[in-house]
Amino acid sequence: VDRAPRVRSNITVQQWANSGLDLHVELNRAHLRESLERSLRETVQSGRLGAGALLPPSRTLAGDLGVARNTVAEAYAQLVAEGWLTARQGSGTRVALHPAGPAAAAGRRAGPEPVARYDLRPGFPDVTAFPRGEWLSSARSALMRAPADVFGYGDGRGRPELRAALAAYLARARGVRVSADSVVVCSGFSQALWLLGSALRAEGGKAVGVESHGHRLHREVLAGTGLAVRGLRVDDHGARPEGLEGLDAVLLTPAHQFPLGVALDPGRRTQLVKWAASTGAVVIEDDYDGEFRYDRRAVGAMQALSPELVVYAGTASKTLAPGLRLAWLVLPARLVGPVLEQRLLTDLHTGALDQLTMAEFINSGRYDRHVRRARLSYRRRRDRLVATLARRLPDMALRGLPAGLHAVLELPESATEAEVVARAAARGLALEGLGSYAMAPDASPPALVVGYGTPPAHAYTSALARLCTTLAEHD
Amino acid sequence: VDRAPRVRSNITVQQWANSGLDLHVELNRAHLRESLERSLRETVQSGRLGAGALLPPSRTLAGDLGVARNTVAEAYAQLVAEGWLTARQGSGTRVALHPAGPAAAAGRRAGPEPVARYDLRPGFPDVTAFPRGEWLSSARSALMRAPADVFGYGDGRGRPELRAALAAYLARARGVRVSADSVVVCSGFSQALWLLGSALRAEGGKAVGVESHGHRLHREVLAGTGLAVRGLRVDDHGARPEGLEGLDAVLLTPAHQFPLGVALDPGRRTQLVKWAASTGAVVIEDDYDGEFRYDRRAVGAMQALSPELVVYAGTASKTLAPGLRLAWLVLPARLVGPVLEQRLLTDLHTGALDQLTMAEFINSGRYDRHVRRARLSYRRRRDRLVATLARRLPDMALRGLPAGLHAVLELPESATEAEVVARAAARGLALEGLGSYAMAPDASPPALVVGYGTPPAHAYTSALARLCTTLAEHD
Repeated sequence: VDRAPRVRSNITVQQWANSGLDLHVELNRAHLRESLERSLRETVQSGRLGAGALLPPSRTLAGDLGVARNTVAEAYAQLVAEGWLTARQGSGTRVALHPAGPAAAAGRRAGPEPVARYDLRPGFPDVTAFPRGEWLSSARSALMRAPADVFGYGDGRGRPELRAALAAYLARARGVRVSADSVVVCSGFSQALWLLGSALRAEGGKAVGVESHGHRLHREVLAGTGLAVRGLRVDDHGARPEGLEGLDAVLLTPAHQFPLGVALDPGRRTQLVKWAASTGAVVIEDDYDGEFRYDRRAVGAMQALSPELVVYAGTASKTLAPGLRLAWLVLPARLVGPVLEQRLLTDLHTGALDQLTMAEFINSGRYDRHVRRARLSYRRRRDRLVATLARRLPDMALRGLPAGLHAVLELPESATEAEVVARAAARGLALEGLGSYAMAPDASPPALVVGYGTPPAHAYTSALARLCTTLAEHD
Repeated sequence: VDRAPRVRSNITVQQWANSGLDLHVELNRAHLRESLERSLRETVQSGRLGAGALLPPSRTLAGDLGVARNTVAEAYAQLVAEGWLTARQGSGTRVALHPAGPAAAAGRRAGPEPVARYDLRPGFPDVTAFPRGEWLSSARSALMRAPADVFGYGDGRGRPELRAALAAYLARARGVRVSADSVVVCSGFSQALWLLGSALRAEGGKAVGVESHGHRLHREVLAGTGLAVRGLRVDDHGARPEGLEGLDAVLLTPAHQFPLGVALDPGRRTQLVKWAASTGAVVIEDDYDGEFRYDRRAVGAMQALSPELVVYAGTASKTLAPGLRLAWLVLPARLVGPVLEQRLLTDLHTGALDQLTMAEFINSGRYDRHVRRARLSYRRRRDRLVATLARRLPDMALRGLPAGLHAVLELPESATEAEVVARAAARGLALEGLGSYAMAPDASPPALVVGYGTPPAHAYTSALARLCTTLAEHD
């Protein structure tokens, strides 16, 4: 029996979420984590926090409650494990769409994350389109021919076979100025960002600029390396080259701003490179979906302007699958050593077999064919999104370039993002508001970031229908 | 033309290496890295530092020269890339055994690391024995049956299929008390150690104890997380449970101390667990080669004494291949959240396809069969090492349990490790002295740590012959 005195605190976390979020948390100071878990569990069970509702970041809630951040993080992790909450890259911790029942939650700590029936959240490719057979063929060719040293400890930059294949591909497909020696294979873009941030920090770097809208996880990864993270305003021409004083680096999405969907203006590219040249800073170009441009006006990598000032970062997460955890950096020579030093202090290098398979996948032409197929498929999905909205909701406007896996859909001024997201969740459709990506609360009109990559092909029509019904309800 | 004034400094780095190492370095303060690179390159080219010679750690040399550590690390990385130096996990930076010629060095920045013809250094399995066909079969079964969510972003703990397979295997083969929920799949043991160190640090941990002899990289990884690293003396009964005050964790190799080869005494295991219980500290059990014991007296995991106080860490690096980058932690419940929090800020999770393949490899019984084959093969190698030494050098003694992939070979009192290593290098045989693993200079008699895992089967006889010839030369 729990005899410690109870402290009650009611907290409202309005400064963070778009909608006010009222969390009633009972904390037993002698058993902080357990009581926090219990309170959060009850909040979800009772329906006080509805399906899909966004929880405050662990740092924020910890500050409000006056407890260690880890206490909150552990409680969140436990409730995710139990199926009450879901945690997803870039979109924070949320109440699960189909929270586990009490029976399930009591016994199992590792239930699978509940999945909405339809999902139009951005940031994910269609994982059902992964080319399993072709990948396996590449794995077979690569593994049977591999030199034995593949199985030993390897170079922190990655396998030479993959670095050479990527160098050729990136020069050809994205206009990157690259030799194999400047490529570092990473286990996903977030690791690439962590390595860069840590290397800059170890060199004495203090602050990094990020676009005012972007993945929260990327900001957290950079902050986790000890760098201060400052926002750069984004307008219709991309990030504004203002307020750069004191920054050691800026992280940009020049080809297709995430999530706003604009391209970085050529004049600004030049300005930013000049700034880097004059201050010794670096520009980090996150080319997360550069392969997917649908209007035959693909913009080459900004890195080509100045390979010694711009770090190019690419990934297989959008073209193939996030589960592969394969990404790549093209580094200025002066950063290769510092990045490898960080690598040596963490995971040494990315798994060699996937690297060899990817090299073979590229060299055999399968990667190009797969990217072409995927581009056509996503282009059609985008066209259908545009056509469906034009037919059913002609007053609603899509913003952003014809590119990538997402578009910004403006909501009527009278709507709130949280309300639309909640209504969609009730229909089994997962949506994401633009506000989820804002670094600070801003005055942007309400909007959704619609990702058309996620649903498998057979579910796309139904997902669009639910989207339109949800939106029409408000009108 | 370089017009900056030159500063000359002669440094001797005797406090660090077993042999005194005299580095003559000319530094141009305006072009620090370039001039350091040039000096080091000339030192190797001229033969002033012989093949196999150990360079001081970058931190030490940086301190001696009064330059940033990164400057030294970058210079080392550049010379490794050029083939003049080699860097290998746990054994520091060395002069390459076959340094690249000037022509090769001038043009190529990424030449492969020169490899000695024969290699009896410890820490590596026989990579030529990797079961390629069986691994591919497992990959095919796993990938063709995989649910689509394998290709998406996943749980930071790893795939449920692999966690379940590992839990069953570890309980059965190593006596670990484990459920799938407490398993976290990592990208190699060094990442596991980084995650643990970072999680402890984030919780307010300050210091970790390590065995006085061990992999330098492990100490560096822990230090990199911000923890102070203190040594625990090791004797014939393993690490001594002394000087534990103020430690938040200890990293141990209970089954088979690396590199000294002893087992941790049962009484000491209990003492250490009691210490952890009374202070809130954790014991980290590095079970790197627990599968390989040759006398049918395998010791179960220390973790079973107290799963809430002992973290169990295992790896596929010795049983299968380091290049896979697959390892696993079995965590006390209170550490799962903090470790996942660190994971979320770096690489999210280990690549899913290798995880699924490994799960299938275990579940199909292939892993057990492979481990049995490998155990028999390494046991025979060890027996041959013992027999060859007994025949050719009957005065020399091998120390350590009949286990794992290495043994300690005592040298005559009059010998120095550096001299024996250099003589072996001249014969194309790579050896490693015990001193390379010492945390601080100590008074241990000179010895080699002989690894019999590395040579492919066809080269083992020649490697042993060269070892004996090298050793006989001194006698």
